[in-house]
Amino acid sequence: MSSPPSPMPSVPIEARLAALEEGLDSARARLAAAETAQGRVADELAILRLVASYSPRVDSGDAEGVAELWTDDGVYDVDTGLLEGHRGLTEMVRGDAHQGLIAHGCGHVPGLPVVLLDGDHAVATGYTQLVVRSSRPGRYTVMRVTANRWELERRGPVDATDRGWRVVLRTARAVTDDGEGRRLLGRSREG
Amino acid sequence: MSSPPSPMPSVPIEARLAALEEGLDSARARLAAAETAQGRVADELAILRLVASYSPRVDSGDAEGVAELWTDDGVYDVDTGLLEGHRGLTEMVRGDAHQGLIAHGCGHVPGLPVVLLDGDHAVATGYTQLVVRSSRPGRYTVMRVTANRWELERRGPVDATDRGWRVVLRTARAVTDDGEGRRLLGRSREG
Amino acid sequence: MSSPPSPMPSVPIEARLAALEEGLDSARARLAAAETAQGRVADELAILRLVASYSPRVDSGDAEGVAELWTDDGVYDVDTGLLEGHRGLTEMVRGDAHQGLIAHGCGHVPGLPVVLLDGDHAVATGYTQLVVRSSRPGRYTVMRVTANRWELERRGPVDATDRGWRVVLRTARAVTDDGEGRRLLGRSREG
Repeated sequence: MSSPPSPMPSVPIEARLAALEEGLDSARARLAAAETAQGRVADELAILRLVASYSPRVDSGDAEGVAELWTDDGVYDVDTGLLEGHRGLTEMVRGDAHQGLIAHGCGHVPGLPVVLLDGDHAVATGYTQLVVRSSRPGRYTVMRVTANRWELERRGPVDATDRGWRVVLRTARAVTDDGEGRRLLGRSREG
Repeated sequence: MSSPPSPMPSVPIEARLAALEEGLDSARARLAAAETAQGRVADELAILRLVASYSPRVDSGDAEGVAELWTDDGVYDVDTGLLEGHRGLTEMVRGDAHQGLIAHGCGHVPGLPVVLLDGDHAVATGYTQLVVRSSRPGRYTVMRVTANRWELERRGPVDATDRGWRVVLRTARAVTDDGEGRRLLGRSREG
Repeated sequence: MSSPPSPMPSVPIEARLAALEEGLDSARARLAAAETAQGRVADELAILRLVASYSPRVDSGDAEGVAELWTDDGVYDVDTGLLEGHRGLTEMVRGDAHQGLIAHGCGHVPGLPVVLLDGDHAVATGYTQLVVRSSRPGRYTVMRVTANRWELERRGPVDATDRGWRVVLRTARAVTDDGEGRRLLGRSREG
């Protein structure tokens, strides 16, 4: 990997120092570019992880775990009701409707979203299916196909496992003939 | 992080220069390896993003957005019809069958694919479910479970957000008793 | 990118050597940190790939391909039966029940899991839907929504494409009113 010590006594010290200084500067610039690129992929993976983690948390009734994915004043704007802040989110998870669903057996199954990253802001657009156990054994019913637009910001330390990402606004609309889900999906290329 | 300036006057200048030259060479080799590894993860994420982005684009009727995921002469070989080039793709999105489906309410929900990367070529194998709003309120019908093999090539600049990836051939077959979907899935380990 | 050779003859050689030694040390420390961070993202992508690759392998009847995702003595603890080691896994894939399902037409469709990484150990929590072709044309039935907890260890070489990851234990439970699936999902934050 490394070359042997230069055996050339004829290269003057001044030239060797200058070459080293130039080489070190150039390596530092490449290192900075690699660190930036590395940060971007770590951010994208952290955002995929955040989006994916909503589902097991909500389906196991982990109200705090759900809430802490959002900023304190974050909003979950879903067609079945607007949830505001951590209180709004925890109340939904603890509410009778949701508790009934998870006791019966359901999954808010997340598909693979598209993540657009722009510094400390990001948008993820994707689908979740709400699939609920049917009264017929060995059958599940798809009750909702939901279009989701997650708007995220870095609000915590970048060196945390979640790289500081929190949801500021998640907008969710079932894909129906009212066109609202479709319009959300149509914004997937918008940061 | 950094050590203090060496206080050892007894190490001759020649030896210090040689050690620096060797150390810089070695750091450059590690940097090159890190850049290569970094490129691979960025490529894999870009391919996941490309595959994921098909669904919101097609479900929102974004014909150009769908087409530009493919190369100009790219092919979408689906059991319901062979689509050739950007024209074939945009015509499908704008066609009555697709427009009817998205106006009614549907999702081409993407699962998590497996990506095999080999330089400027890649293959992603995965599933999409076509889930359509039922006439019964709060019900959706899974109309297709599709096996997908995406063959991709880098055709654009590597420093673009998409890292230059385009679809050359997407083959899609419903998983039925004709075994075609199963055969596509059986090629998931083939690059 | 690089600065021109230093034109300052007044900086003594000793000071330039010391600055280079300090600069190289500092660059090496950043490089080591970048290599570690790079390894983490490569691990996370390798684990996503492993989890995703189960489905096309099992749905195409690739018994060896399924088995080799696990360690030799790995376990697949699913509510329909405990599968132990590569033999247990290959027997399941080759068994009449599974062969009947894949000949009929089905997909074990994977959602996006949450990956928690801790050195050479990892846990991925996610969902799979078993969707089977219905007797009615153009219809599929969701027969299971399964909560999955994949416990993985690095057992092979880190420089392999799979970065050495193998499944030690996959626990899978349908989400029903027995609460077992829900309990598995409730452990998604546990490494």
